[in-house]
Amino acid sequence: MTGNRAVAYKSAGVVEVIDIDYPTFELKDGPGVNPANIGRKVPHGVILRTVTTNICGSDQHMVRGRTTAPANLVLGHEITGEVVETGPDVEFIKVGDIVSVPFNISCGRCRNCKERKTGICLNVNPDRPGSAYGYVDMGGWVGGQAEYVLVPYADWNLLKFPDRDQALEKIMDLTMLSDIFPTGFHGAYTAGAGIGSTVYVAGAGPVGLAAAVSAQLLGAAVVIVGDMNAERLAQARSFGCETIDLSKGEPGEQIEQILGVPEVDAGVDAVGFEARGHGKDADHEAPATVLNSLMTVTAAGGALGIPGLYVTGDPGAKEKAAQVGSLSIRLGLGWAKSLSFTTGQCPVMKYNRQLMMAILYDKVHIAKAVNAQAISLEDAPRGYAEFDAGAATKYVLNPNGYVKG
Amino acid sequence: MTGNRAVAYKSAGVVEVIDIDYPTFELKDGPGVNPANIGRKVPHGVILRTVTTNICGSDQHMVRGRTTAPANLVLGHEITGEVVETGPDVEFIKVGDIVSVPFNISCGRCRNCKERKTGICLNVNPDRPGSAYGYVDMGGWVGGQAEYVLVPYADWNLLKFPDRDQALEKIMDLTMLSDIFPTGFHGAYTAGAGIGSTVYVAGAGPVGLAAAVSAQLLGAAVVIVGDMNAERLAQARSFGCETIDLSKGEPGEQIEQILGVPEVDAGVDAVGFEARGHGKDADHEAPATVLNSLMTVTAAGGALGIPGLYVTGDPGAKEKAAQVGSLSIRLGLGWAKSLSFTTGQCPVMKYNRQLMMAILYDKVHIAKAVNAQAISLEDAPRGYAEFDAGAATKYVLNPNGYVKG
Amino acid sequence: MTGNRAVAYKSAGVVEVIDIDYPTFELKDGPGVNPANIGRKVPHGVILRTVTTNICGSDQHMVRGRTTAPANLVLGHEITGEVVETGPDVEFIKVGDIVSVPFNISCGRCRNCKERKTGICLNVNPDRPGSAYGYVDMGGWVGGQAEYVLVPYADWNLLKFPDRDQALEKIMDLTMLSDIFPTGFHGAYTAGAGIGSTVYVAGAGPVGLAAAVSAQLLGAAVVIVGDMNAERLAQARSFGCETIDLSKGEPGEQIEQILGVPEVDAGVDAVGFEARGHGKDADHEAPATVLNSLMTVTAAGGALGIPGLYVTGDPGAKEKAAQVGSLSIRLGLGWAKSLSFTTGQCPVMKYNRQLMMAILYDKVHIAKAVNAQAISLEDAPRGYAEFDAGAATKYVLNPNGYVKG
Amino acid sequence: MTGNRAVAYKSAGVVEVIDIDYPTFELKDGPGVNPANIGRKVPHGVILRTVTTNICGSDQHMVRGRTTAPANLVLGHEITGEVVETGPDVEFIKVGDIVSVPFNISCGRCRNCKERKTGICLNVNPDRPGSAYGYVDMGGWVGGQAEYVLVPYADWNLLKFPDRDQALEKIMDLTMLSDIFPTGFHGAYTAGAGIGSTVYVAGAGPVGLAAAVSAQLLGAAVVIVGDMNAERLAQARSFGCETIDLSKGEPGEQIEQILGVPEVDAGVDAVGFEARGHGKDADHEAPATVLNSLMTVTAAGGALGIPGLYVTGDPGAKEKAAQVGSLSIRLGLGWAKSLSFTTGQCPVMKYNRQLMMAILYDKVHIAKAVNAQAISLEDAPRGYAEFDAGAATKYVLNPNGYVKG
Repeated sequence: MTGNRAVAYKSAGVVEVIDIDYPTFELKDGPGVNPANIGRKVPHGVILRTVTTNICGSDQHMVRGRTTAPANLVLGHEITGEVVETGPDVEFIKVGDIVSVPFNISCGRCRNCKERKTGICLNVNPDRPGSAYGYVDMGGWVGGQAEYVLVPYADWNLLKFPDRDQALEKIMDLTMLSDIFPTGFHGAYTAGAGIGSTVYVAGAGPVGLAAAVSAQLLGAAVVIVGDMNAERLAQARSFGCETIDLSKGEPGEQIEQILGVPEVDAGVDAVGFEARGHGKDADHEAPATVLNSLMTVTAAGGALGIPGLYVTGDPGAKEKAAQVGSLSIRLGLGWAKSLSFTTGQCPVMKYNRQLMMAILYDKVHIAKAVNAQAISLEDAPRGYAEFDAGAATKYVLNPNGYVKG
Repeated sequence: MTGNRAVAYKSAGVVEVIDIDYPTFELKDGPGVNPANIGRKVPHGVILRTVTTNICGSDQHMVRGRTTAPANLVLGHEITGEVVETGPDVEFIKVGDIVSVPFNISCGRCRNCKERKTGICLNVNPDRPGSAYGYVDMGGWVGGQAEYVLVPYADWNLLKFPDRDQALEKIMDLTMLSDIFPTGFHGAYTAGAGIGSTVYVAGAGPVGLAAAVSAQLLGAAVVIVGDMNAERLAQARSFGCETIDLSKGEPGEQIEQILGVPEVDAGVDAVGFEARGHGKDADHEAPATVLNSLMTVTAAGGALGIPGLYVTGDPGAKEKAAQVGSLSIRLGLGWAKSLSFTTGQCPVMKYNRQLMMAILYDKVHIAKAVNAQAISLEDAPRGYAEFDAGAATKYVLNPNGYVKG
Repeated sequence: MTGNRAVAYKSAGVVEVIDIDYPTFELKDGPGVNPANIGRKVPHGVILRTVTTNICGSDQHMVRGRTTAPANLVLGHEITGEVVETGPDVEFIKVGDIVSVPFNISCGRCRNCKERKTGICLNVNPDRPGSAYGYVDMGGWVGGQAEYVLVPYADWNLLKFPDRDQALEKIMDLTMLSDIFPTGFHGAYTAGAGIGSTVYVAGAGPVGLAAAVSAQLLGAAVVIVGDMNAERLAQARSFGCETIDLSKGEPGEQIEQILGVPEVDAGVDAVGFEARGHGKDADHEAPATVLNSLMTVTAAGGALGIPGLYVTGDPGAKEKAAQVGSLSIRLGLGWAKSLSFTTGQCPVMKYNRQLMMAILYDKVHIAKAVNAQAISLEDAPRGYAEFDAGAATKYVLNPNGYVKG
Repeated sequence: MTGNRAVAYKSAGVVEVIDIDYPTFELKDGPGVNPANIGRKVPHGVILRTVTTNICGSDQHMVRGRTTAPANLVLGHEITGEVVETGPDVEFIKVGDIVSVPFNISCGRCRNCKERKTGICLNVNPDRPGSAYGYVDMGGWVGGQAEYVLVPYADWNLLKFPDRDQALEKIMDLTMLSDIFPTGFHGAYTAGAGIGSTVYVAGAGPVGLAAAVSAQLLGAAVVIVGDMNAERLAQARSFGCETIDLSKGEPGEQIEQILGVPEVDAGVDAVGFEARGHGKDADHEAPATVLNSLMTVTAAGGALGIPGLYVTGDPGAKEKAAQVGSLSIRLGLGWAKSLSFTTGQCPVMKYNRQLMMAILYDKVHIAKAVNAQAISLEDAPRGYAEFDAGAATKYVLNPNGYVKG
């Protein structure tokens, strides 16, 4: 029996690499597993030897202790792997395939999946529509920051790369297909970023950078990225974005300096509920800051794509309203400008095949845009810490040595 | 020179019928006219003898004194008329045509108009995108609750009815094309109401009823309307809606009794910023109540259409945040359910021709749905008062006797 | 072991009810089974006891001998059934469920299925994308005009009715969800039939009638149906359509009498490749007649929905070009009018759930529109003959006595 | 009074530069002017001093004598100009503006214009929906291959460049906005070219090259261009396209060599009715060749964009059917693959602003893609001849010396 090293949440601020069981075709009891899911048979699943698995900003919410995640919950929902075992019901996916795993777990049999809304599958999370690997309150599917991981409904969920050698050669780009690239793309797309558009992306973390490069891929004329982290802004400039330093205040004036007008066609919120104030207010949390700012700088008739995570409850929030997920939003402003808003998890399967093609044919360089760096699984705690400290880096774990040099 | 009787706002709670000037092809100074619009030439306009002009719920915001509307501002943006004079630049509209006037004034020459976003035309209101007749801060175009009214950019704006006699026969339905029917339709449409869908409409005022009948026209399986006004709920039932009495509390449980599940596919906010609490909280304003309630009862993956008006500033609001148009919204809930939101004025021209066809061919009976009643222009103050008191009636002013019986 | 009576094609013009094997979870060799499909395991399938199964116009192409269908091919792709056995991989569908079977067989695992294009599934027919039960060159899946039938990929394919009693009560409507209703709806929808539109449907057979009632459900102002069969035209008038007698010539002039203009917004071809000429040319096949006529009567900027079947080869055609599926189409006319065209099998799963809801909530009466009549399985040959002779009837086979009265 | 030199069609194969009248705000009688348009007042028009005006492939249809164009018809519908005079009804466009003129003339007041279908405006061409400058049977609006030209409905039609100096600097790109770039873009867009798609463009003339670069802008993974002209294929390769030499036969096999499969996601017909056979059949006209070939190489579920012109009548065609615009199309093949088709003039105003932005921000280099070359107005006859001979060049006339170097 093979062992299985995995990255686990221990307590606020602490992650460790621990030993867990090698997966079988059953969802067993464990930290964070929904009781109704315990013992669930997974004959439609495959076991992957992890090729790459990325640290995500939404993992940080748990690691910072902002959630009810239990100790020893195995993290990781951005997974690329090699199929090493297939369940008896798997028909089309084969051992040896190199595959990307959408972070949303979905069944491929419910109404929502049939309508391509795989971010809110009805059959995988007993608590509510929608699920993910290695995440609190998402059903209890074991995370993929590990050497091996179980993927259910494999024929439906998995995106197979057409050629193994080519896949491993471009693995630092392809690893972004499991979450961050489609998530950023979804943000840009639902914001209405299109040919010749002007786009403002709030937040230069990995999702913001992915949204920015997606807006470019969608044909935007100008992509402007705002943040308070100089290193991340430099990263945004490295692939052709304009940037705005939010430590200097609200973005409108700086947008006007770039475009001649203080508004853009499309706005993306790549920050979410842990937002801080702008300018002199940057030292405290202000969860509605980003949305209110985006409504100000998005032109009438525009749209806001909101890939940044907002939560139903945030016990650690400073504001009482924010603790129950309420934000003080200037909806009147948005209404007067006829804005529309799209929220929620990105339905990865709606985009990942096309984005894979764009990567394979060298039309986009997502790894470079987000400054991907491979580190070993054992180095995961360091990756979490550096990422939390604001490094302009997307950390890619390399548990089985597939990533070379 | 013909005289011109018109309904004017005098002070909080007071409207009067006064004498104003007969219109000319120029926007002259007057109450509420934006200085930059004073003296604006309107050779592209027509003068209408008003056939019908309706009292709208958004007029009530001014009449209640919730805005900065000046005394003697002439009200009325729901206008149907007969062309009695055409400006020198008018080419296709002719004297004698019976026409519907979209309440959004638009130029037909700017980027937004070219993109069908006539609710946010860039050229008619010096203050901001978007305009309307007889409304505070909308540029100063004189209202149409009058015997005669000027309509600019007539070839672009006006919807001509194909046959005069047929038009006058169906005038109580056709009069709804200027605002309330398209506005309700826009709400239902942007909420995703479609074939076989389940729809919840919050608010049984005229816009809510229009949204409900629109959802039926769009093929909804079930349309549920919620309100606290028994008479208005009875009106909703009269054309086949299910209803919910919100004085009994939040709508979820009652929806479950109707549908078997506590959620609908599509939610419409036909209330807006003057919302009150539900159940025992109904005695005080609670501007975010409707939106938060809709997020609760709209199923994951659904959409909210928000035709109800939210304002950028509401000096008369009880809550300080609401005074600047901020609402405490449970965005986290919406995000977890992947909801999307569409706000803003309905771009009437996107829908009015098709809805006219549906009326002319007897596919919808909007006048019956909203319980339209014609009253004389001089009776307008009574109409305002009764409407404000909660009458389940849509008041249609009949300034020139076109409406018979 | 239960027996299994089934309707089989014997030779041109001849169908018979024969005994076939009770299905198992394997696709066995038999008439018309693609060699690559022989022995295919179907653990993801269910066995249905047929509740209803309808005779379809496209079955007639085989029965008339216009295809290469082999003797003893079991017919039937419009199937509603009760689940009596589930394969080991089936997770959500249960024994006792009453279900509608989309006529397109699809896997729910390929790129096309994931994109909702279930009419061109890549994994079920070794010959080409797309498959169906009981049809020549469609992979060899055994037809459902039988007492029992195997349905593969059941969790994906099947639409479960929410309540058994309600389902059996409305079965004559619900039976239309497997093909004809979605197919007609797809025709109307892709033709652009929408609120207030004017629609012309060429052909008053069951698909044409289904397209007509669908156009009404989609909010059309006027639906006009053209045919040369007086009984079928009367059927169209029975639910509010206008009609045109094509034996009197091209439809333009008659459309003008109805609408005042000789063109409609949307055109539906519900005839397909076995079209005949209009007026005095009605005595001979003229396969391009319908399309050329539709291009003439559809207004510039309109669209044509083409649910009527066109085939890649038609050995029995009179014209040599038509034998290889080529038609002499006035594309220049279509181009000058900026028309667009949508062809192909209806992807049933895109529409069937919503249409089911419309039926269950009494928003549409499809059985009445197509004049559905239940007959026994043994009477199938008579049903084929009468339908071929032009009866204005949709024949519903009732193999197990579920349909009462 | 200023003179006005202009390029005129004289007879089959002959164009000449002649003297015509300087335009006034009236459409006067002249070669090809529709009687119903003679004397039409144009107070809404502007007079342009032509900055650039391009020779278009569709002009060649007239020049080759394939139409009923009369002698002395002034050619030219691809126009960029400087406003030198404005009619009395013009409100927003000003003297001195540098503007792009959409080749479709449209009124901005009819139903189709309001629906953005400016290619089929109802008010400018008495013969049929849709119009253009300098084209036979299009209403008689005088062509723009001249020093000066009248543009009607100027506030609606014209796209103003934001900065004069920037406009003149990028004029060789911006001149493509009047027709060829939007037309190519429309072809790619309606073919479904999107992120990560594979696209085949039939024809490497200027429209084909514009479609190819548009597909790249839309994010296509691979763009393949087919032609029989080696120089044009080299031009396609110059900006990153794959190419196919159709003199070697049908494209399927060559596509397979490039992609590994013989089919693409999206197909564009940039040839139209003067198509020739492929391979050994290349020596004769075969007007359905391109469409039939595209149906073969476009994957099931794909779409065909058809910007290539097909005409209602082609008296000079070899085939009798083609003389009346009928083509022998393998519709059965298209139907079996569920293909859809979009035909007609590109509605330029739907795309030109966004494409302008893409040019101004250096996201696309259309002039380089189509190999634009400026020549003097007097050299137009040479340009026509070289273009007709197959030069891989887009000829841009420079009547007033705006184009430097």
